[in-house]
Amino acid sequence: MRSLIENLEESKIREVANAAMDKTDVLAFWFGESDEVTPEFIRRAAVESLERGETFYTHNLGLPELRQCIANEMSKRHGVASVGMGRVAVTTGGVSALMIAAQALVSPGDEVVVISPLWPNLCAQATIMGAHLKHVSLSPRAGLWELDMDKLIAALTSSVKLLILNAPNNPTGWTLTRREQETILKHCREKGIWILADEVYENLYYEKTENGCAPSFLDICDPNDKLIVVHSFSKSFLMTGWRLGWMVVPEYALNSIGKLIEFNTSCASLFTQRAGVVAIQRCDEVTPRVVSHLKLCRDTLCSSLGKIQGIELASPRGGMYAFFKINGYKDSLDVAKRLVLDVGLGIAPGEAFAPESRDWFRWCFASKDPLRLTQGIGRLNEWLETNSRF
Amino acid sequence: MRSLIENLEESKIREVANAAMDKTDVLAFWFGESDEVTPEFIRRAAVESLERGETFYTHNLGLPELRQCIANEMSKRHGVASVGMGRVAVTTGGVSALMIAAQALVSPGDEVVVISPLWPNLCAQATIMGAHLKHVSLSPRAGLWELDMDKLIAALTSSVKLLILNAPNNPTGWTLTRREQETILKHCREKGIWILADEVYENLYYEKTENGCAPSFLDICDPNDKLIVVHSFSKSFLMTGWRLGWMVVPEYALNSIGKLIEFNTSCASLFTQRAGVVAIQRCDEVTPRVVSHLKLCRDTLCSSLGKIQGIELASPRGGMYAFFKINGYKDSLDVAKRLVLDVGLGIAPGEAFAPESRDWFRWCFASKDPLRLTQGIGRLNEWLETNSRF
Repeated sequence: MRSLIENLEESKIREVANAAMDKTDVLAFWFGESDEVTPEFIRRAAVESLERGETFYTHNLGLPELRQCIANEMSKRHGVASVGMGRVAVTTGGVSALMIAAQALVSPGDEVVVISPLWPNLCAQATIMGAHLKHVSLSPRAGLWELDMDKLIAALTSSVKLLILNAPNNPTGWTLTRREQETILKHCREKGIWILADEVYENLYYEKTENGCAPSFLDICDPNDKLIVVHSFSKSFLMTGWRLGWMVVPEYALNSIGKLIEFNTSCASLFTQRAGVVAIQRCDEVTPRVVSHLKLCRDTLCSSLGKIQGIELASPRGGMYAFFKINGYKDSLDVAKRLVLDVGLGIAPGEAFAPESRDWFRWCFASKDPLRLTQGIGRLNEWLETNSRF
Repeated sequence: MRSLIENLEESKIREVANAAMDKTDVLAFWFGESDEVTPEFIRRAAVESLERGETFYTHNLGLPELRQCIANEMSKRHGVASVGMGRVAVTTGGVSALMIAAQALVSPGDEVVVISPLWPNLCAQATIMGAHLKHVSLSPRAGLWELDMDKLIAALTSSVKLLILNAPNNPTGWTLTRREQETILKHCREKGIWILADEVYENLYYEKTENGCAPSFLDICDPNDKLIVVHSFSKSFLMTGWRLGWMVVPEYALNSIGKLIEFNTSCASLFTQRAGVVAIQRCDEVTPRVVSHLKLCRDTLCSSLGKIQGIELASPRGGMYAFFKINGYKDSLDVAKRLVLDVGLGIAPGEAFAPESRDWFRWCFASKDPLRLTQGIGRLNEWLETNSRF
């Protein structure tokens, strides 16, 4: 066993969840998924495919029909000229797409820049491929997460191979502005640096924009730019457990990506892809409802959190997480374990996402019933009263 | 893009299949899958799971119930003491299990020994992780594939990190004997070399044995030996398109494997795992029938091939492929393309599996209707008559 693999950090979120293994009454907000089942008409498409007997291997790059649907949807969001089917690969979940991108781009010893706090998988994947990671930290300023562009540009030297970013960001909700994207793109073009943009939360965006999405690198990039954008059906279609995602790559890279899919998973299962076709075709019946419900959830949670003395948070512009600090409590892993054991409130410790977030917490607000969030707030208040640091 | 990835060899099988893209009347025997749909009761389990709304993330290592079923089945085949649930991880297909094993074991620059001809994915995965591959070739002797043990042992020096083997073997049907396994194990223990055994065809074995399976490393290894065994639901349960497999690892490695599953695919989808549970529980209703049908297919194909002048083949002891030579025809890639274009017969060129197999062909005999095999033989005869080299 490689010591590098043995030393990969285990999920601190799982560590908290494991601490509560035997506890039954837990309101869990630690994982990044809604508690709402996939809509019936999407499940139906998979059921019908299974009943038809579609149980065979399919194309490495995905069902042509699904790739075309995805290309159409991407073009609708980001400009007709930008995305043809020849740039789309279907993968077994967004995480597989990200791992394949790491395999495609990272040679042992390569320098890779990441912006953190960040979903830990993105760092782990590059590390597995032998990257040396350089972290550029977001800073909380008056509760808002900000990227120090000077620091980022300084970190992106000619020896850097790849920039990995996730915006809207898990866990902070931080989102890149258009101007920041343009600066990053211009600089990466000059230096020949690849950009891996995890944009799985682009739909879950709560500010007004023309296309309803967060700013995407696809809006401003040329088709041949060194850019890989990763997407997932998980969040905006309530399909976490299906394991279906996609990547948009330059056309010249598609062939290599197809080979990597063959060597990683062969293909996404056909009945799952049939569900994906229906999900995208009937996107309007799912995603707008999901987004407006998430906005309600966000507002419910954030306004309640904001009323609690000692809590510092910024309302996230995108994503499905509130990231906050409780003044006086420095060790989020310890507090998260105590919260679940003492009052049955399951939230994720900030240090799961960056060492510098040790005193922060992540609360996933994707809850079918917003009352669960209010109940959770009640439990937090109860715990804070008996463990007051003031 | 890493040049190593750009230079990975594309599938020569796909190259032949692509050559026939516009041809409708093709009898295709090039891919490694049966043309029989997954049994209804297995599909039903997934359908019911979808109807129940099981569309959420699940454990990285797999559903405990499925892991327990697999552990029971492995223990039944290979000895009760050998495999507990603490050694089993469920993966998104056998290929994902193999890729995760490569990530766990291969550091950049490591020496890895493979026995070829071999399913090309096994070489590609190690290469992606930066391995230096050393090939030990099987030799056809009087039509039987044999492993030169002296050559293998000589290749397994102290600087070798990992031995990768696949037996029963795709494409040749070659199978390790118990004595060979013992010699390999003893030597690898002495040198500290890991063994990655792709045993997905262990059930598809046509010789008489006590447990009905081909000899497995699990029969003779201790639980702590440096051994990873990979399995798949694809072949013995007619579930190729589902993408469900498993690996058996030493207990001390399971934690690392769980992390790698998280970073590669997160988890296999729950409804697929429900199908897996039923497949294993009702194994006796599927696998024996599949195996005896495959035996019939093998005998049908091999006896017909054996009657053709100039064809050299050994009846495979395991697997689902006939691997054969047509004397006088040296370039199997060219011949395979001509066969599909001229007479609509789709078989795989030997050089897809090793450079030294350039004059061999692989024919997958997993055919629901054995008549298709006879028709295929007819087409081969027809082609040989008009392209005679004698």
